[in-house]
Amino acid sequence: MSQINRIRRLIRVAKGEVQPDLLLENISLVNVFTGEIYPTNVAIAQGTIVGVGKQYIRGKESLNLKGKYLTPGLMDAHMHLESSFLTPQEYARAVIPHGTTAVFIDPHEIANVLGTLGIGYILKASEDIPLNVYLLAPSCVPATHLETSGATITEKDIESLLSQDRVLGLAEVMNFPGVLGQDDMVLKKIMVTRLHGKSIDGHCPGLKGPNLNAYIVSGINSDHETIDRDEAQEKLRLGMWLMIREGSAAKNLKELLPIVTPENHWCCIWATDDLEAKDILTDGHINGILRKAVEQGLDPIRAIRMATINVARRFGLKYTGAVAPGYRADLAVFGDLKEFKTLVVIKDGKIVYEDGEIKVPIKKWVDPKVLNTIKVKPVETEHLKLRISGDRAKVIGLVPQQIVTESLIRKVKKDAQGCVLSDIEQDILKIAVVERHHATGNIGLGLVKGLGLKRGALASSVAHDSHNIMAVGENDQDMIAAIREIERLQGGLVVANHGRAMASLPLPVAGLISPESAETVSQTMDKVLGTARSQGVIAENPFFALSFLTPTCHS
Amino acid sequence: MSQINRIRRLIRVAKGEVQPDLLLENISLVNVFTGEIYPTNVAIAQGTIVGVGKQYIRGKESLNLKGKYLTPGLMDAHMHLESSFLTPQEYARAVIPHGTTAVFIDPHEIANVLGTLGIGYILKASEDIPLNVYLLAPSCVPATHLETSGATITEKDIESLLSQDRVLGLAEVMNFPGVLGQDDMVLKKIMVTRLHGKSIDGHCPGLKGPNLNAYIVSGINSDHETIDRDEAQEKLRLGMWLMIREGSAAKNLKELLPIVTPENHWCCIWATDDLEAKDILTDGHINGILRKAVEQGLDPIRAIRMATINVARRFGLKYTGAVAPGYRADLAVFGDLKEFKTLVVIKDGKIVYEDGEIKVPIKKWVDPKVLNTIKVKPVETEHLKLRISGDRAKVIGLVPQQIVTESLIRKVKKDAQGCVLSDIEQDILKIAVVERHHATGNIGLGLVKGLGLKRGALASSVAHDSHNIMAVGENDQDMIAAIREIERLQGGLVVANHGRAMASLPLPVAGLISPESAETVSQTMDKVLGTARSQGVIAENPFFALSFLTPTCHS
Repeated sequence: MSQINRIRRLIRVAKGEVQPDLLLENISLVNVFTGEIYPTNVAIAQGTIVGVGKQYIRGKESLNLKGKYLTPGLMDAHMHLESSFLTPQEYARAVIPHGTTAVFIDPHEIANVLGTLGIGYILKASEDIPLNVYLLAPSCVPATHLETSGATITEKDIESLLSQDRVLGLAEVMNFPGVLGQDDMVLKKIMVTRLHGKSIDGHCPGLKGPNLNAYIVSGINSDHETIDRDEAQEKLRLGMWLMIREGSAAKNLKELLPIVTPENHWCCIWATDDLEAKDILTDGHINGILRKAVEQGLDPIRAIRMATINVARRFGLKYTGAVAPGYRADLAVFGDLKEFKTLVVIKDGKIVYEDGEIKVPIKKWVDPKVLNTIKVKPVETEHLKLRISGDRAKVIGLVPQQIVTESLIRKVKKDAQGCVLSDIEQDILKIAVVERHHATGNIGLGLVKGLGLKRGALASSVAHDSHNIMAVGENDQDMIAAIREIERLQGGLVVANHGRAMASLPLPVAGLISPESAETVSQTMDKVLGTARSQGVIAENPFFALSFLTPTCHS
Repeated sequence: MSQINRIRRLIRVAKGEVQPDLLLENISLVNVFTGEIYPTNVAIAQGTIVGVGKQYIRGKESLNLKGKYLTPGLMDAHMHLESSFLTPQEYARAVIPHGTTAVFIDPHEIANVLGTLGIGYILKASEDIPLNVYLLAPSCVPATHLETSGATITEKDIESLLSQDRVLGLAEVMNFPGVLGQDDMVLKKIMVTRLHGKSIDGHCPGLKGPNLNAYIVSGINSDHETIDRDEAQEKLRLGMWLMIREGSAAKNLKELLPIVTPENHWCCIWATDDLEAKDILTDGHINGILRKAVEQGLDPIRAIRMATINVARRFGLKYTGAVAPGYRADLAVFGDLKEFKTLVVIKDGKIVYEDGEIKVPIKKWVDPKVLNTIKVKPVETEHLKLRISGDRAKVIGLVPQQIVTESLIRKVKKDAQGCVLSDIEQDILKIAVVERHHATGNIGLGLVKGLGLKRGALASSVAHDSHNIMAVGENDQDMIAAIREIERLQGGLVVANHGRAMASLPLPVAGLISPESAETVSQTMDKVLGTARSQGVIAENPFFALSFLTPTCHS
């Protein structure tokens, strides 16, 4: 058995009979078990940490890292790849330079478009890249009965996903009313995960008291939606792993850090949830969170535990998340434990990042099956006619910097035929949701206030959770132009004016993801947002705002 | 699916729509997650903790526990049932009154006699008793190639055992030279356990440096044989779970406690390894360890974690080891966190101990297949003739209170035919090991110094690791009488004099275990030891000393 021979060889290296592949010398080791930092050497062979101690002094290759800090590779305990618009490979290329070696993803968005096919693509695309991509099976696809999503993930699908090694459990059970109401489908998905002995992630903003107990009693034992300290304290006391989220939009670190104590930090872990490519490039990934946490007074060893061994334990991973014999040699070297500037990253025993450069090839590959997913019945101006009786209508009011919206009633502008028109004086714009999975021609119409758009239109194929096409505009022609451009690109974010596309970020992978690098995505996004602003948009990220409006497209 | 209905009901109880089966009111809860103690109520239904909080105020049954402390049920992370001479049921009856609700046993001794049949009996006998008996599959049966044991546990047997829910991994890999020497059989057993995702317990007294790294790199990540602080510190740093042992013979708590810190106590757990019935009755079980630890300055919450959540995490058990919704309702109530006097014990939601009494029936059942295991070819005086050339011979020297022995050379007493005789002047006694598994008639003979026996003989069917019959005596006739009594009892400890048995503790279950209660075993043992002392024995427990002499019985 080759695995036996592998262990045999590791033992010989540890005993000093065979040279390790790589020796890290004079490193200041951050020991997550004992909470100590001390100078030592680390011997690595066959992708595994083989020996830790001053007695290891030779290696086929060696790195003298005097004055530098060695930690386990950092882990992001909960995130959606789709929020970065990056493929697994490009995400890896973006986060490896920040010391990240593992991410725990919920492929909820691509699953809503493509179901298990989309999840299969993520699994395949993340094979053999220098980043451990672990998946949690999406629990809520479609998100609600009201939505026309592209696919459904059934309990059977979950069961089949759970049989795969890299699928570690059930992803955030957003449908907490379903749990509380003992919805059969939700409970079946929970039960099948429990029977597999795997983990169940939660999502229960604001849940308290008996309802929180009821949610947890089902077996769900983490939450990343906590925004206040009392809530955090109650969840910790009731045995939840507290995932402290610090992403592009939702930033909870500052508020929650004071409740992290030496006694409870073993139940706390970091997560980004939704992080944009631009933010990774400018502020880093989990190392950026460590920097903020330490700046705000958290002991750096505890902060590192929350990004390593605690995450591994939460997901039941053995032999990963620490620097010890037998552990996977996924490691990060930092210049200090304050700025957390990453100097070297080691993945499966190989140096994958050093001197500011990624040292290994990362293949670009996209499954052709996840392209060309936008299926739209041609939209004509008559489809966008919004007729109402009377002169007052419901308007969705955006709240700056927040996902929640207000429900307003406003007097609206109408044309001679009685159809509602966008009204830039009041900043009330027509919004359309165009079904795009099955070309049904279903279109939902409404009004939104707060974007600031004065000219042209915006459209996007990213709209939680079903990812139909959202379009908003000052006039119908530009809305149609923007929708057509989305169809032509087979997904993306588009700004239109004068009947044509002025700027766009193509997202051809399931209409959600770009095949380009983080740098290209970030620059293109800047251009698109600049164009939108030049047409009057005041919302900081109008596409983000649109993506959370979640109207449905039943006609 | 009935499990879905169960969860459905738990949710309804947690929400307050249905009354819990049991309500614990005004308890001071020891929260192992947050390290806090605070007053609250705990609602229990269907064997599960359903809700924790002041909002739970009703229950079909309720207990007001004001001023008392509620902890998760205590766990013994590593122990050999056989050392208590008790069956699983009688062991449960002995330890439940001390707040223990789970033990992690290595059935190494019974496996040496009966192989998987013996392990199967332990599994069956521990079903439906108010104690979680988890097993680790014995890794070293037989213990060495030199021994004539009753059975062999192969890699295939291990694999079949690991497929059972209550078998959590591979038991202490005592054969550390085998690991270091990359012995094929040992590595196969380790590998099959790793492939099952289960835990591998270690046993590596004194191992350090490269050899310790080599032992750990194989995947073994706990140790309970550590006796000094430097060793403990090195093992913790290298990622081992440190099992601090405090048993009847080996007591390591006092020495090791100073290395337990707030930062590393998450990697430390308690174990008894070998604990006699008498010690359970007089000093308690894990609660006795907590008492000592707190007396020596350990924070009580940390001490409790080392007996609960840490143990659960070490073995990958979810939903056990804490007081939180969804957790198994295995709980202990203590009067204080100093003496740890146990007031109430709850197992699977039922009160199993209260007011000094066990409240539930515990069935007595012994599989007839594990009885009548002593198969001896009749021993006659000529079989005990020990002929040597010259007048000096090797003598095993006992070291008081220790398992290790000295190898001595002494001038010995011989009869007219040149056969060595026991010599009570020098306290040198003849010792015989009689093969008892296959009635081969194989007998090994030797000499031992230090027992003090002046008259008669002792014999025992407990002799690590193969459990052949050990007999020692002042004369051959009494040795034969003692051996015959062992055969008649089908196992036990015997003191003989004047050609007949004077006192005995029958151990008919595999020749290792009594079917009687802890009280009876303890009292009988006292009587046997008293009789031995009346015949001159000075060793505190001569049977214990004999059991570790481990000579072999190849003729």
